[in-house]
Amino acid sequence: MRVLVLNGPNLNLLGTRERQIYGAATLADVEKEVGELAAELGVEVSFAQSNHEGALVDLIQQAGRDGIDHVIINPGAYTHTSIAIRDAFTGVGVPFVEVHISNVHAREDFRRHSHLSSVATAVIAGAGTLGYSLALRLIHARPTATR
Amino acid sequence: MRVLVLNGPNLNLLGTRERQIYGAATLADVEKEVGELAAELGVEVSFAQSNHEGALVDLIQQAGRDGIDHVIINPGAYTHTSIAIRDAFTGVGVPFVEVHISNVHAREDFRRHSHLSSVATAVIAGAGTLGYSLALRLIHARPTATR
Amino acid sequence: MRVLVLNGPNLNLLGTRERQIYGAATLADVEKEVGELAAELGVEVSFAQSNHEGALVDLIQQAGRDGIDHVIINPGAYTHTSIAIRDAFTGVGVPFVEVHISNVHAREDFRRHSHLSSVATAVIAGAGTLGYSLALRLIHARPTATR
Amino acid sequence: MRVLVLNGPNLNLLGTRERQIYGAATLADVEKEVGELAAELGVEVSFAQSNHEGALVDLIQQAGRDGIDHVIINPGAYTHTSIAIRDAFTGVGVPFVEVHISNVHAREDFRRHSHLSSVATAVIAGAGTLGYSLALRLIHARPTATR
Amino acid sequence: MRVLVLNGPNLNLLGTRERQIYGAATLADVEKEVGELAAELGVEVSFAQSNHEGALVDLIQQAGRDGIDHVIINPGAYTHTSIAIRDAFTGVGVPFVEVHISNVHAREDFRRHSHLSSVATAVIAGAGTLGYSLALRLIHARPTATR
Amino acid sequence: MRVLVLNGPNLNLLGTRERQIYGAATLADVEKEVGELAAELGVEVSFAQSNHEGALVDLIQQAGRDGIDHVIINPGAYTHTSIAIRDAFTGVGVPFVEVHISNVHAREDFRRHSHLSSVATAVIAGAGTLGYSLALRLIHARPTATR
Amino acid sequence: MRVLVLNGPNLNLLGTRERQIYGAATLADVEKEVGELAAELGVEVSFAQSNHEGALVDLIQQAGRDGIDHVIINPGAYTHTSIAIRDAFTGVGVPFVEVHISNVHAREDFRRHSHLSSVATAVIAGAGTLGYSLALRLIHARPTATR
Amino acid sequence: MRVLVLNGPNLNLLGTRERQIYGAATLADVEKEVGELAAELGVEVSFAQSNHEGALVDLIQQAGRDGIDHVIINPGAYTHTSIAIRDAFTGVGVPFVEVHISNVHAREDFRRHSHLSSVATAVIAGAGTLGYSLALRLIHARPTATR
Amino acid sequence: MRVLVLNGPNLNLLGTRERQIYGAATLADVEKEVGELAAELGVEVSFAQSNHEGALVDLIQQAGRDGIDHVIINPGAYTHTSIAIRDAFTGVGVPFVEVHISNVHAREDFRRHSHLSSVATAVIAGAGTLGYSLALRLIHARPTATR
Amino acid sequence: MRVLVLNGPNLNLLGTRERQIYGAATLADVEKEVGELAAELGVEVSFAQSNHEGALVDLIQQAGRDGIDHVIINPGAYTHTSIAIRDAFTGVGVPFVEVHISNVHAREDFRRHSHLSSVATAVIAGAGTLGYSLALRLIHARPTATR
Amino acid sequence: MRVLVLNGPNLNLLGTRERQIYGAATLADVEKEVGELAAELGVEVSFAQSNHEGALVDLIQQAGRDGIDHVIINPGAYTHTSIAIRDAFTGVGVPFVEVHISNVHAREDFRRHSHLSSVATAVIAGAGTLGYSLALRLIHARPTATR
Amino acid sequence: MRVLVLNGPNLNLLGTRERQIYGAATLADVEKEVGELAAELGVEVSFAQSNHEGALVDLIQQAGRDGIDHVIINPGAYTHTSIAIRDAFTGVGVPFVEVHISNVHAREDFRRHSHLSSVATAVIAGAGTLGYSLALRLIHARPTATR
Repeated sequence: MRVLVLNGPNLNLLGTRERQIYGAATLADVEKEVGELAAELGVEVSFAQSNHEGALVDLIQQAGRDGIDHVIINPGAYTHTSIAIRDAFTGVGVPFVEVHISNVHAREDFRRHSHLSSVATAVIAGAGTLGYSLALRLIHARPTATR
Repeated sequence: MRVLVLNGPNLNLLGTRERQIYGAATLADVEKEVGELAAELGVEVSFAQSNHEGALVDLIQQAGRDGIDHVIINPGAYTHTSIAIRDAFTGVGVPFVEVHISNVHAREDFRRHSHLSSVATAVIAGAGTLGYSLALRLIHARPTATR
Repeated sequence: MRVLVLNGPNLNLLGTRERQIYGAATLADVEKEVGELAAELGVEVSFAQSNHEGALVDLIQQAGRDGIDHVIINPGAYTHTSIAIRDAFTGVGVPFVEVHISNVHAREDFRRHSHLSSVATAVIAGAGTLGYSLALRLIHARPTATR
Repeated sequence: MRVLVLNGPNLNLLGTRERQIYGAATLADVEKEVGELAAELGVEVSFAQSNHEGALVDLIQQAGRDGIDHVIINPGAYTHTSIAIRDAFTGVGVPFVEVHISNVHAREDFRRHSHLSSVATAVIAGAGTLGYSLALRLIHARPTATR
Repeated sequence: MRVLVLNGPNLNLLGTRERQIYGAATLADVEKEVGELAAELGVEVSFAQSNHEGALVDLIQQAGRDGIDHVIINPGAYTHTSIAIRDAFTGVGVPFVEVHISNVHAREDFRRHSHLSSVATAVIAGAGTLGYSLALRLIHARPTATR
Repeated sequence: MRVLVLNGPNLNLLGTRERQIYGAATLADVEKEVGELAAELGVEVSFAQSNHEGALVDLIQQAGRDGIDHVIINPGAYTHTSIAIRDAFTGVGVPFVEVHISNVHAREDFRRHSHLSSVATAVIAGAGTLGYSLALRLIHARPTATR
Repeated sequence: MRVLVLNGPNLNLLGTRERQIYGAATLADVEKEVGELAAELGVEVSFAQSNHEGALVDLIQQAGRDGIDHVIINPGAYTHTSIAIRDAFTGVGVPFVEVHISNVHAREDFRRHSHLSSVATAVIAGAGTLGYSLALRLIHARPTATR
Repeated sequence: MRVLVLNGPNLNLLGTRERQIYGAATLADVEKEVGELAAELGVEVSFAQSNHEGALVDLIQQAGRDGIDHVIINPGAYTHTSIAIRDAFTGVGVPFVEVHISNVHAREDFRRHSHLSSVATAVIAGAGTLGYSLALRLIHARPTATR
Repeated sequence: MRVLVLNGPNLNLLGTRERQIYGAATLADVEKEVGELAAELGVEVSFAQSNHEGALVDLIQQAGRDGIDHVIINPGAYTHTSIAIRDAFTGVGVPFVEVHISNVHAREDFRRHSHLSSVATAVIAGAGTLGYSLALRLIHARPTATR
Repeated sequence: MRVLVLNGPNLNLLGTRERQIYGAATLADVEKEVGELAAELGVEVSFAQSNHEGALVDLIQQAGRDGIDHVIINPGAYTHTSIAIRDAFTGVGVPFVEVHISNVHAREDFRRHSHLSSVATAVIAGAGTLGYSLALRLIHARPTATR
Repeated sequence: MRVLVLNGPNLNLLGTRERQIYGAATLADVEKEVGELAAELGVEVSFAQSNHEGALVDLIQQAGRDGIDHVIINPGAYTHTSIAIRDAFTGVGVPFVEVHISNVHAREDFRRHSHLSSVATAVIAGAGTLGYSLALRLIHARPTATR
Repeated sequence: MRVLVLNGPNLNLLGTRERQIYGAATLADVEKEVGELAAELGVEVSFAQSNHEGALVDLIQQAGRDGIDHVIINPGAYTHTSIAIRDAFTGVGVPFVEVHISNVHAREDFRRHSHLSSVATAVIAGAGTLGYSLALRLIHARPTATR
C-alpha cells in the first residue's frame, strides 16, 4: 500500500505560524511522526507540500500516474477556494482523506465550507497534527474504502 | 482517564439501517471494538444510546457530575437540530469529540451543518465505525486537549 | 395489511385546540372513524400519539420490528424540526403517508418546510380529519406503493 | 354538486410521459375512473385539459359563471410559475383541491413551491392518479369546506 | 396621439372580483371613463384585454406595427411572472405606463416585484380605476416622455 | 379639503440636481403648478420641505393636529431608510400618496424598497414633477380613500 | 391568580453553568426568590423544569387543564428549535411571558431567533435571574393582558 | 443613582397613536408613573423625548457628560435603522436598558431586528408602558450590571 | 434525420428588435440560412415560432408524435420563466439544443437562469444568428447524443 | 483649492470614545493637524461636524453653493444607513473622499457596507486620524480627479 | 487570422478522466481535430494547457503581446473561481469564446456560475469536444465579433 | 524600516490595461515614484509582482524570513478569491496595507468583498497609483501600527 501525504499553502510554516492555533510541531516533525507510524503499519509513504494550487493539481495527477493508493491531504486555504484540486482527485480517481490540524468549524465562517469534503473518503478536523496519523490508521484499516 | 461514548437517535439500528451507508456492524459490535481498544490503552470507557434529545442532555449532565474526562458523541440527526445538547456540553464543561460514521458532507445538504462542531475538540466523519476508535486514540494521545 | 396511525405533539388536544383551524373532532373521534374504515377495507390498524420526538422515533423503530406495512403519520410541529423522525423511517424502511389536518401552506411560513415529505409516499394537507381516511384508502388501493 | 376536474400542461401525455414517475394510466383512464366514482357518489363531474396558462384562466372563470361548486386541479408546471391561475380562483371565488400525481417534494427543488397551495382547500401529492379520486371523496364528504 | 389601454389576466372580472380590493366598477365602466377623458383631451384611445400572456405579447407587437404612441397596461398577475411582455415592449420600442388598481405594495410579498417597472415610463399603483385616467393625463401632458 | 405637500431630503435642489434624472423645474415651480391645480379644484394646499428625518416626522404629527385630510409626500432618500416617517403616518392616521419624480424602479437596486408604500393610499413613480398634480387629482376625486 | 414558572434544558445547571454568563444563583435560589415575591403579591406560584422538549409540551398542556392563568417560561435552547412548545401554548390558550437570563441578542447569531416570541405576551432578556420576578410583577399588574 | 428615560420618534403620540397597540396612557402618564417609582426607590430620574435621531445622539452624549448611571431607552423606529444611537452609547460608555411597549416580535418583520440590543444591558418588550418601571426596578436592583 | 427549429416569444421581431443586441437578420433570413446548411448536411428541417408558452408546449408534443429526432430551440423570455416547456421536452423525450442569439450572461441578471439548460443536450449563447447553424452541425455530427 | 472636512455622528467624542479603536487624539487635534498640512500645501480648508443626518445634508448642499472643490467626509455611523447623504453629494456634484479612522472591515459585519463608497472618489480606512491628511494629499495631488 | 486554444486545469486528463462525462478523446485528439479544421478554414491556430491559474494569466497576456485575434478557452475549474483570468482577458482586450465539453448546467450547482461568461464573446457548453470546432467556426465566420 | 511593495495579477499590464480605469502610468513608473518617496522618507523599499497566487504566498513568506517590517500589497483579482494570501500574512505576522488603484466599490459587485481587508492595517482604494505613496506615508508615520 502506497500513500501520499500532501500539504497545501502555508503548512510549511508549521511550528512558527500562529502556534496558539497550529501548535509547535514543524512540518518535518509531522512527517517524521507519520513516517514512523507508516513503517510500523507496513505502508509506503511519501510527502509533498506546495503553496501553489496548480502544483497541487500536478502532484495529484502524478499520484494517479504513480499508482498511489490513497492520498492524505491538508489543503489549507485551498480547501475553501479550489475546485481544480477537487477535479484533480475525481479526474484521477484516487481516494483521499481530508485533514485539518485545527477545528475549522470553530474559526471564521469562510473556513466552514470545503470544496473537497463531498468527494473525500473521510474528514478529520481538530485533532492537531495527530490527524495525519489517524488518517493513516484509517486507510490502513480500511484499504478498500472508497467514496 | 474516563471516557463516555454516547450515541444519538437511530444509531441503535446500526447493522440493519441503510447498510450501504452505515455498514454491517451493530452497535454492540462497535462498543465491543471500542471497549477492547480502551482496555489496551488503559482507558475506562462506558456507553450509552438514546433516541431522546432530552435523555442525551441528561446523560451529558450526568457525565459532568460523574467526572467523565471526555465524551465521544455521535449525535445522529440531533447534530443538525439540537442546541440543547450543545448547551449541555458547554454547561458542564466536558470536552467531546464529534463522530459521524458516514461522510455527512457527501449526503443531503441539511447534514452539512452541525450545532456541535464549533464547540467540539475535534470532528471525524466518514471513517465508518472505526471513527469511534480514532476518537479514542486522539483523546488518549492528547489527554489535556481542550477546545 | 397492517397500518399504524401515528400522531405527533399537541394532536392529543384535537377538539379543544384552536377549533377554527383543527375542527371539533377529538383524537378519539378520528381514531374511531379510521378504525371503522379500516374494518370495512379489511386492514388491521393501530394507533399511537406522543408529544416526545424521541418516543415517536421509538414507535417507528418498533413498527419496523413489528412488521407494520405502512405508517400514516401526522408529525405536528416535528414536521418542521425533526430529522430524527425522518431518519427513523428511512432506517427501518417502512413507507409512510404524511397527513396534516390544516392546509399548512396557508399558515405561517415556517410550516411550509417538511423534513419528511421528500421521503414520504404521499402528502395530504388541508383535508381536515378526513385526511387520515384518505391516506388509508390510498395505502389500501396501492399496497405496493413505495417511495 | 358539480365538480370540474382541470388538468394543466403536459398531463395529456399521461401514460406515455416518464412512466417511472407518472405511471401507465392515460388521462382518459383517469377521467373514466373519476367519472365512475362521481357517479357512485352522485356528483356531476366534467373534465378539461390545456397546455395554455391563459386557457386555464378562461376555464376557471367559466367554471365560476357556470356555478361549479368545487374544482380539482392538477396545475402541472404552472403550479410553480402561474399567479394568474391563482388570481382566477380567488377572483371567481370557487374553492379547489390541488392534486399532484407524483410526490413533488421528492423531486427538483423548483417543484417545492406552489403559487396555489396557500389559497387551496387541500393539497394531495404523491398518491398517483388515485389522488383525483381522493380529492373527489374529500369534496363530497365536506361539501361546505372553504379555505 | 394614439394610446392603447391593455388589461391582463382576470381584469375582465372587474366589478365582480374581490370587490373589497378592486372596487365595483366593471372593465366596461373603466373603458367608458377613460374613453371620455381621451375624447376631452383629444387623444385616440383603443382597448384590449386578454388572459393569455402570448396574446398580450401579440397585441403589443401589433401596437408597434400600428404606430401606437404609448400603451397604458395593467398586466395583472403577469406583472410578476412575464419577461416575454417586457421583451415585447423593448422589442417594439413603444413606451408604456404601468397601472395597478390596488396598492400592490400592501398585499402579498410576491406582488412587490414587477418585471416591467424598470422599463416603464411611470408606475401608478393604488389609485383604483382612476389610475388609468391619471396615466392618460400623464401621457397627454408629456407626449415625448421616454424611459 | 386640506392637503399638505411634503418634500424630503435634497428635493430643494430640484432644477439643479441631476437634471437628466429630475428635470429642470425647481421646487418653487412645482409648488406653483400644484397650487394652481389646487385652486382650480377647490382644495386648500400647503407646502413644506426638509432634509431632516426628524423634522419630517414633526411635520406629519403637526399635520395630524392641524386636521390635514391627506398628505402628498415625496420622501426622497428617506423612502428607503426611514421607519420613523412610516410610524408618524400610522400614528396620526392621516392618509398619504407617495410620489417619486423619477422611476425609482429603473435606478439602483436600493431604491426599489420603500418603507412607506405598504401603508400609502397610492404610489406614483416616474411621472416627473407632474406626479404631484396627479396625486392631487386622485385625492380630490376619491376624498374618502383610505388605505 | 395562579402562575407556573417553567424552565427548559440545562437551566437545572444554574449556579454551576458558565457563571460568567448565567451568574451564581442556583435554580433553587431563583425559585425561592420568585416564591417570596409571589407570596408578597398574593399570587399562587408553582415550578417545573425539564431537559425534554416533549415533557415541556406535556407540562404546558397540564397547565391548561389545571387552569393556570399565566406561564413564565425560560425555554433555554428550545427557544430556537421548538415549534412544538409554541403550538402547546397556542393549543391550550394560556398566555406566557418569555424570559432569558442572559441578553441573547449579545451572543451567538443562532440565539437571536425565537419560535415563541411572536406568540408571547412579553419578552424579557438580559435581566439576569431577576427577569423571572419582573415577569411576575408584569403578570400581577396586568392580569388580563393577552397577546 | 441617576437614570435618564429617553423616548424616540412618535412616542410623544402615546395615548393617541394606534391605541390598540400602544394603549391609552400618554407619555406624561408614563413619566409620572416612572417618576413615582423612582422616588419610592430613591433613584433620581430625568426624561427626554425627540423625533430626531441626531438629537437622541446629542442627548446620550450629554448623559455621558452629566454622569448619568444608566439610560432607559425606547428608541421607537430608530431601533431598526440607527447605528448612530448605538455608537453614541458605546462611545460614552453609559449602560442602557432597551424597552418596547408593544411586543415587537409579534409585528412586522422589520421590527424584529434591533441595532441596539446586542450592546444593551437588557431588553424588555411587550410589557406595555409598565416596561419602563420594570427597567427601573432592574437598574435599581442590579446597579453594577454592565453589558 | 429530422430537426425542428423552434423560436419563442418576440423572435419574430428579429431584424427590427433592438438591433444593437440581436443584429439585422430577420427570422426569415435565419431560417433560410439554416435551411441551406440542412440541405447541405442532408438533414430534414422544419421551423416554427410562437409568442405563446402553451403553443410551444403543443409544438414540442407534436414534434414527439411526429418522430422529430432533435429540436433546436431559442426559448426567448420563456427560458427564464417556463417549466412547462421543460416538462414538455422531458415528457416526450426529444433531445434539444438551447440557443441564444445574444450572450445572455452579459445582460440583466434575470437572464442568467434557464429552466431548460439542465435538461438540454447543449447550450450555445452569444454566437449571433449563427448559433442555430452551429447547433445543427452539432446534432448532425453527434446524432446519438442524448442528455 | 477649497476643501471641506466633514465629520459625522459621535466623531466629536474622539479622544474619549473607545480609545482602543479610535486613538487618543481629539477632533480638535485632528483639525489642527489637517489645517497645518493644508497650509503647507496651499489649500484652503474648513471644518464641520454634526450628529444630525439632515444637518450633514444641509452642509453638503451649502458646500455646493459655496463652491467647495472637494469634501473629505468621515460619515461615522451614517456610512451604513444614509442614502440622503449620498444623494446630497450626487445632487450638488461635489467630489469627496470617504475616510474611516478604524479599519471598518475588521469590525462588525454591519460596518462593511457603505452607501457612499460607490460614488466616492476614494476610500481610506484604518489609517487612524492620519487618514484625513492622506485624503488631503490625494486631493491636492489629483485636483481634477472625479468619480 | 490567429487563434489560441487554451485549456485549463485537468483537461490534460481528457480521455482518461471520468469518461462518462468527458468522452474518450484525448487532448491531443482534440487539438488534431481543431488543427485540421483550422487548416481547412485558413486560420492559424496554436494550443496551450496548464493546471496553473497564474500560468493561464501569463499565456493570455502573451497572446495579447503576440497579436492573437481570438482565444478559445476551456477554463475548467477556474471558470468558477478565477477573476484573475477574467481580468487578463479584459486587460489585454483579446476577445474569447468560452467552451465547456460537458453541459455544466446539468452538473453540480457550483458549476453554474462562470466568472468569464459575462465578458466572453460566446459560450458553448455540452457539445463535447466538438465545442472547440464550433467555436472556431464562429470566430472564422464572424471575425470582427467583439463583446 | 524595510517595506515590500507587492503587486498581484495583471498589474504588470499597468499603463496598457483599461486605461480609463487604471490610468497611463506603467508599473515601472509607479515603482519609481514610490522609490523616490521612500528615499525621501528614509525607508528601504523593494518591489515584486506576480500573476501566480502561490508565488505571492511564497513572496510573503520570504518577506517574513527577511524581516520586512510592513508590506504594501495590491492583490488585484486575488483580493476577492484568495484565502491563501490572507493566511500567509497572518502566518508570518507581517502587517500590510491593502491598496487598490481604482475605487473597487464603484465597479462590479464581486469586487466589493476582500478576503484580506479584515486582517489588513489599512485599506486605500480609488486613489489611483498615488495610493502606494499614501500607504508608504502611513507606514512611515505610524511605524508601530499593527492590526
